[in-house]
Amino acid sequence: MSAAALAEAVSAVGSTRQLAKAARRASRQLATLDAATRNAALEAMAAALLAAGPELLAANAEDVRRAEAANATLPEAERLSPATLARLRMDPGKLEEMAAQVRSVAALPDPLGRSLDAIELDGPGAPHTRGGLRMEKLSVPLGVLAVIFEARPDAVTQIAALALKSGNAALLKPGREVERTATALVRVLRGALAEAHLPQDALTLVLGRERVDELLGMHALVDMVIPRGSKALVEYVQAHTRIPVLGHAEGVCHIYVDRAADAALALRVIEDAKTDYPAACNAVETVLVHRELAAEFLPRLAELCLARGIRMHGDALVQALLRDVPTVPAVDDWHTEYGGLELSLGVVASLDAAIEHIHAHGSAHTEAILTEDAAAAERFLHEVDAASVMHNASTRFADGFRYGFGAEVGISTSKLHARGPVGLEGLTTTKYVVRGGGHVAASYRGSDARAFTHRRQP
Amino acid sequence: MSAAALAEAVSAVGSTRQLAKAARRASRQLATLDAATRNAALEAMAAALLAAGPELLAANAEDVRRAEAANATLPEAERLSPATLARLRMDPGKLEEMAAQVRSVAALPDPLGRSLDAIELDGPGAPHTRGGLRMEKLSVPLGVLAVIFEARPDAVTQIAALALKSGNAALLKPGREVERTATALVRVLRGALAEAHLPQDALTLVLGRERVDELLGMHALVDMVIPRGSKALVEYVQAHTRIPVLGHAEGVCHIYVDRAADAALALRVIEDAKTDYPAACNAVETVLVHRELAAEFLPRLAELCLARGIRMHGDALVQALLRDVPTVPAVDDWHTEYGGLELSLGVVASLDAAIEHIHAHGSAHTEAILTEDAAAAERFLHEVDAASVMHNASTRFADGFRYGFGAEVGISTSKLHARGPVGLEGLTTTKYVVRGGGHVAASYRGSDARAFTHRRQP
Repeated sequence: MSAAALAEAVSAVGSTRQLAKAARRASRQLATLDAATRNAALEAMAAALLAAGPELLAANAEDVRRAEAANATLPEAERLSPATLARLRMDPGKLEEMAAQVRSVAALPDPLGRSLDAIELDGPGAPHTRGGLRMEKLSVPLGVLAVIFEARPDAVTQIAALALKSGNAALLKPGREVERTATALVRVLRGALAEAHLPQDALTLVLGRERVDELLGMHALVDMVIPRGSKALVEYVQAHTRIPVLGHAEGVCHIYVDRAADAALALRVIEDAKTDYPAACNAVETVLVHRELAAEFLPRLAELCLARGIRMHGDALVQALLRDVPTVPAVDDWHTEYGGLELSLGVVASLDAAIEHIHAHGSAHTEAILTEDAAAAERFLHEVDAASVMHNASTRFADGFRYGFGAEVGISTSKLHARGPVGLEGLTTTKYVVRGGGHVAASYRGSDARAFTHRRQP
Repeated sequence: MSAAALAEAVSAVGSTRQLAKAARRASRQLATLDAATRNAALEAMAAALLAAGPELLAANAEDVRRAEAANATLPEAERLSPATLARLRMDPGKLEEMAAQVRSVAALPDPLGRSLDAIELDGPGAPHTRGGLRMEKLSVPLGVLAVIFEARPDAVTQIAALALKSGNAALLKPGREVERTATALVRVLRGALAEAHLPQDALTLVLGRERVDELLGMHALVDMVIPRGSKALVEYVQAHTRIPVLGHAEGVCHIYVDRAADAALALRVIEDAKTDYPAACNAVETVLVHRELAAEFLPRLAELCLARGIRMHGDALVQALLRDVPTVPAVDDWHTEYGGLELSLGVVASLDAAIEHIHAHGSAHTEAILTEDAAAAERFLHEVDAASVMHNASTRFADGFRYGFGAEVGISTSKLHARGPVGLEGLTTTKYVVRGGGHVAASYRGSDARAFTHRRQP
C-alpha cells in the first residue's frame, strides 16, 4: 500500500481545511471530558500500540528501507545522517518505550480545570440579587494544535499523548521519511480513540509538504503551531504564519567562567555542557572567561578540548594565550550554533561585559555562570534575560524532564505564553468563570455605588 | 511650538530604530530595579503631573482647539464624535484623577520577582558537587512594549505607570489628535524619571503614522504591541507584525436566556449589559432566548428595549413573536458589534444550539447564561470557549478593575499568554533560575545514574 493510499485509509479524505474543521469539532468534545476519561483513552492508546507491534514495525521497516535506498543514490549533502537514520528506526524495545511514555503522560497531574485564582467580587446583599458574586480563573485546553516534525516515530506518540492529556486536538504533519510509520501509528491511535468512545478526529494526519502552508494560513481553526525540527523549519514557520508558534529556532548557550570560578568545577561543567549531547539545543556553544583567570584557565580548558576532540575557535586574546595549541582558528561568528564538538572561546573584562556579550549574541535559551562569588552569581541570574539561567550547573539541565515536568512539548524562547521547557501547562489557556445571582454593573457606580470586596479566596 | 518641534525636544531625535534601541537599553536597567525604586519613580511621576498642571492643560487646550476647528471644516463622517472630543479634553479634575491613577498603580502588589514554582531537582550528594540542585520559576519583565492608542490623554499616564511598575520600557504612539498633550505629558514624565535616577528612555514618544509600520517591523527590539483603539486599528496591527499583539479586535458578547431563566432577573441583567456603557467591548450585542420561554419573554424584553431606546433586530421567529412591535428589522449579521443601543435577538431550540451559535458567531470575549438550572449553568460555563463566561451576571463585569486586578492593560481574546482582562501579570514573562554546586547532566544518565528528587518546594 502506498503512503498516500494508507493516509487516505486513515483520515485524509478531504481538504486540509476540512481536516482542520473536523479537528476543531473534536476539540470541542475533548474539552468537555474529565481526566479519568482522557486517561483511559491514553491507556487504550498504549495498549493498542503494543498490540499492533508487527504492523507498526513493518511500516517502519519500509520507511527505513526507502531512506537507505535514497541515501545510496543521493549526493552526500542530501543524505540522512546516521543519527537521523537511527532515530527513524523502530524495534520492539523502542515500541515498548513509546507505549510506556504514553502511560507516563497519563500518570501526570491533570493540567485542566485547575483553579489558578479565585476572588470574591462581592458578598451577598446587592439589590435584587441572590448570594454573592465570585470569579474563578480556570485552566482550559487551547483547542487545536498543529505539530510539524521530522523523522521521529516517537514524536507521533508523544505529541498524541500530550495533546489528549491536555484536551487538545492535534494535526500531525510528519517528515516525508517517516510517513509510512506515522500513518500506521495514527491509524492505531485513532482506533484506540474510537474504542474509548472519543472522537477520532482528535488526532489527524496531514501529509504532503504543500499542506504545511495551508495549515499555517488557518489562524481561525488552529490555535498553536509547534515546529519540532531544524532551525530552518522553525524560521520558515515563524515567518509564514499569524498563528502563535511554540518553539525555538536557536540555542546559542553561553557559560561565563567568572573571576572567582572554581577551575575544576568549571572544567567538569563545561565538559558536560558540550559533550553530554552536542546536538542538543541546550549544549553550550560559547565559553566566556574572565580575563584575570584566562591565562591560567584557558590552557587547562584547551587540554580538555583536545582530549575530548572538541574543536576550539578563539578571539584574538584566546589565540594569543593558546599560541602553543596548534589549531585555534578565529571565531567566525558568535551566533553560531555548532550542534557538534566545537566551541567558541572569548575573554571578557568583567561580569558586565559577559552579560552584554550574552545579550548581544545569545538566543535567550540557557545561560550559565560558574563562580564561587555569590553576589556575582545573583547579579548574573537576575540580570541575564533568558528562558533559563544557571549558577554552577550544566546548561544541559534546561529540559522539561529534568525540571520535573514529566514530559516536554518543546523549549520556548518566546517571551509570551510559555518560556523555557514547556510541559502540559503550555498547552493550556485560561478562562474566567463568573458566578452571580443577577448582579449588574450599574450597582457599582455612581453616588450610592456598592463597593467590590475583592477578597482573594484560598 | 509645533508638535514636531515639541516632540524633538522630548526625545524623538533619531530614527524609530534608534528610539527602540534606546528603549531596549533602558529596559535592561529597569529589570534590575527593586520594587521600592520603581514605586518611588511612580510617586515622582504623579507629583510631576500635578506640578505641571498649567503647561499640560495648555497643551491639551491647543489639541482640543485644533480638533474643534478641524471638525468645523470636515465632512460629517470624518469628524471626531462628541464622545471622542470629551475623552480628549483635560481639566484640573481629570489631571488629578490621572495622578491618582499613577499612585494607585504604585500601590498594587509587585508583579516582578514572584516565585511561581520551585522544585528541588536533587538533594546534596551528587559526585563532585556541593549542596543540592534547585530550580525556581520567577516573574520578570517582558522588555519593551509598543503601545498604539487613540485620542485619550489618560492612556499616556496609565500605560506609563503600568509599564514602569512591571519593569518594562514603553514606546508610545498616540493618535494625531492628542499629539500635543501626549508630548507635554511624556516630557513631564521623563523629567520625573530623570529625577528618580531612572533612564528617561524607559518612556519614549513616537510620533507620526509612518512610524507605526516601522515599529511593527522591529520584532527583535519590541516584545509586545498593545493596540488600544478601534477594531480597524487592532486588525491592522495584527495583520502587519510578527510581534505578539495583546488586545482584541471585537467584542460580540452574548447572553443566553435559558428555558429555566428567572425573567425579571434576565431583564435586569440584559438592561445593564446593553445600557451601562453601550460602546464598551463587554456590552452585550446578541440575546438568545430558549424557544420555550420566547413567547412569554420576548414581548417583555421588547417593552424594555422600547423604553430604553434600544433598537432591536430579530430572526424570523423573533419577528413573528414581536409582530405587534412595529420596528424589528431582520438581523443582518450575527457578527455585528453595534457599539450603541442596538441588539440582535434570536430564538434557539436548546442549550446546545445556544453554545453552537456562540462558537459560530462570538468573538470569545464574554458570554453569559441566565438560568435557575444549576446543571445547565455549569454546562454552559464549562463548554463555552471564551475568555470570560458568566452565570446570572452582566457581561459588563469582564473588566480588570471589577475582577480585582487594580488596573487593566486591556482585554485579550487571544488564547496565548494572557486571556481576558489583563493586569500587570500580562506584562511579565518568566525565567527559570537553576542554582547548583557543579552539577552535570551526565550524573543522571546511564547504569549508575542518580535519580532526580523533583520535590516541589512550598
